[in-house]
Amino acid sequence: MGQTIAEKILSRAAGRQVQAGEIVVARVDQVMAQDGTAPLAIQVFRQMGGKKPFDPERVNLVIDHSAPSPTESISNLHKMMREFAWEHGCRLYDIGDGVCHQVMVESGRVGPGCVVVGADSHTCTYGALGAFATGVGSTDLAAALISGHLWFKVPETIKVVCHGPLPPGVFAKDLILYLIGRFTADGATYKAVEYTGSAIKELSMEGRFTVANMAVEMGAKVGLMEVDEKTWEWLKEHGGGEFTAFSPDPDAAYAKVVEFDLTSISPQVACPHRVDNVSPIEKVAGTKIDQAFIGTCTNGRLEDLRVAARILAGRKIHPRVRLVVAPASRKVYLQAMREGILATLVEAGAAVVTPGCGPCVGTHNGVPADGEVVVSTANRNFKGRMGNAKAEIYLASPATVAASAIAGEITDPRLFLK
Amino acid sequence: MGQTIAEKILSRAAGRQVQAGEIVVARVDQVMAQDGTAPLAIQVFRQMGGKKPFDPERVNLVIDHSAPSPTESISNLHKMMREFAWEHGCRLYDIGDGVCHQVMVESGRVGPGCVVVGADSHTCTYGALGAFATGVGSTDLAAALISGHLWFKVPETIKVVCHGPLPPGVFAKDLILYLIGRFTADGATYKAVEYTGSAIKELSMEGRFTVANMAVEMGAKVGLMEVDEKTWEWLKEHGGGEFTAFSPDPDAAYAKVVEFDLTSISPQVACPHRVDNVSPIEKVAGTKIDQAFIGTCTNGRLEDLRVAARILAGRKIHPRVRLVVAPASRKVYLQAMREGILATLVEAGAAVVTPGCGPCVGTHNGVPADGEVVVSTANRNFKGRMGNAKAEIYLASPATVAASAIAGEITDPRLFLK
Repeated sequence: MGQTIAEKILSRAAGRQVQAGEIVVARVDQVMAQDGTAPLAIQVFRQMGGKKPFDPERVNLVIDHSAPSPTESISNLHKMMREFAWEHGCRLYDIGDGVCHQVMVESGRVGPGCVVVGADSHTCTYGALGAFATGVGSTDLAAALISGHLWFKVPETIKVVCHGPLPPGVFAKDLILYLIGRFTADGATYKAVEYTGSAIKELSMEGRFTVANMAVEMGAKVGLMEVDEKTWEWLKEHGGGEFTAFSPDPDAAYAKVVEFDLTSISPQVACPHRVDNVSPIEKVAGTKIDQAFIGTCTNGRLEDLRVAARILAGRKIHPRVRLVVAPASRKVYLQAMREGILATLVEAGAAVVTPGCGPCVGTHNGVPADGEVVVSTANRNFKGRMGNAKAEIYLASPATVAASAIAGEITDPRLFLK
Repeated sequence: MGQTIAEKILSRAAGRQVQAGEIVVARVDQVMAQDGTAPLAIQVFRQMGGKKPFDPERVNLVIDHSAPSPTESISNLHKMMREFAWEHGCRLYDIGDGVCHQVMVESGRVGPGCVVVGADSHTCTYGALGAFATGVGSTDLAAALISGHLWFKVPETIKVVCHGPLPPGVFAKDLILYLIGRFTADGATYKAVEYTGSAIKELSMEGRFTVANMAVEMGAKVGLMEVDEKTWEWLKEHGGGEFTAFSPDPDAAYAKVVEFDLTSISPQVACPHRVDNVSPIEKVAGTKIDQAFIGTCTNGRLEDLRVAARILAGRKIHPRVRLVVAPASRKVYLQAMREGILATLVEAGAAVVTPGCGPCVGTHNGVPADGEVVVSTANRNFKGRMGNAKAEIYLASPATVAASAIAGEITDPRLFLK
């Protein structure tokens, strides 16, 4: 019987042919934890009797969620991570290096056929590179850290066919928000999603990361894409090593095949306080905002900053709005500087924070005040997500966020992209 | 009898000839408060029955100490400041605009002969522009906010003659640290300091701001300098209005005249936990560091970033050291980008935070961990200053901090400036 991408990757990693529903112990290629999860993982690693990680070269510790540290207690957790990395020779990404998922896809060490576990929900981002990459808890991560293996139930796959092209002014973020709105937050629970179709193929790798990143917002275990020239190009550009790409067999068994026509969708907005509470922009345009945020593992990449700069060039943000920009990595930050993107954003009134997660999880760098409304390119808008349960968060594309920052209210970016 | 600069400015502001020791009520030209002090000032303003500020155009509210906000409670204080500024038409500097003292000296509204009160200790910075500028508490600020006046005891003046030139690799920060070491922290309590001599005249305006900024660290009420072409040039460049410059009379009465020969001093370092605990670099070189910080109202200006970039160009910071850089203002940030300075710093490994105070007061953006050692360009190294009483802070010039970031220990910058 034919196999899906997920089944093929897990077969390789388990060393035998496996199918959806089986429990397997798979070898993991890379392990990642960030400053919100690594400290507990290290503690459990020690409690489990861990002496040294299975392969320090494959262990990535990233200080990104609260970087640079906003409090003494977080600083002490960072210190613990650094000392662990230095003691064992793990790869350490320190303050200013960027968001864990961005530094991982830029590392050249994650590619087609890999199994990656990360102690962060949005590890599924690397599915855009054809990797079986998924978020796990700190305890599971500790087990992988010791053994280089982890058990999985091989997921069933939902094939999601996205027919394009996307209309002008509609971006990868709109596509995935649209899908999440249709699937709902638990529409793909513990399923692998295979994203395919012309709308996916036309996306840049950066756009594909955005789409893969939010697979977890419909409950998916992984969000996979087929490898093509753009994938290899990305890997080559980032010094990628040897990888084995897997395509699904024509007779692979899918739990479901769903098709979407995306050729006439509008920009999409996820309204408070659920990611699947999605509306076309026409329904929410005019909602007054206090803060706009461009960044995160979903939308802090070069392409995202570029479109924001295109909209903000020669304009000023609304005098009663703050715009926070967090480039996704040191590399993105430097390239955005070289291209004049950062200068454009700062001249328009943006406050650029250190590459990393910025205010996404509410630990610093732009916590909203009571009653404030934020429009953000992040992936989650749960109550309290940005550090204040009395604020409201709308999720949208970088173009929509930039346009809204200018107008002071949620605004259709197509008005600025003519 | 002749007058000092302080006596002349306060005479003008009081509308009568005054001398040291007198109590005067002076008209204030500009009022400033930042996010650590403005909320209380606004509250007291209301308790005093304040309806509107004496002149909103002269009221400057700056969100810089914790910008962008790291916590919900600070966000609510920011909101209070914004709403007050919008209601009354005060000047508001929001997140990303920069450190209060830098935006004030860049504003063109502070210049020779002005009286400025700011609810921040380092308001004395503007003395470099020939302004009688001093830090006051939030309650005094509220009174000035209502009335446009404040009472002062006219200070006696200490004349500090600084003979230069400074040797290569020795900068404005070294000069002022040297003076503070000699004067001690209370050596000039409630005195006006008149800085003069060739070492002062040779400094750029940026260097002079550094020196004036730290007058308060020897207890001085104000740190004044005579106005010269460099002053007028700075004002012209920043769109300055009309000002009246005052020079001291030849027969002015000084509490003391002190002369310093600075032609052979070394780079200076203030050691934990007192600003006046100053040593020449030779005595502390080799002290291991964990974090380096370049920024603040003392040393976050273009000249400071430039010398740091000169040292860090083509080099990498020590793998076990973090380098945090906080440009002093949006203008500084943009110019540093244009000159490639920021790119150089980021390529070397720096984490650049939003223009503002950065981690100076320990509310975010680089709080040290327990037992860590920081070398910083800031103006205070009191226990707990950066948010952790178990850390040690050394103060030095941007050159020394940059050199130390490379070496991983406190290092004489002259090794890198040959």
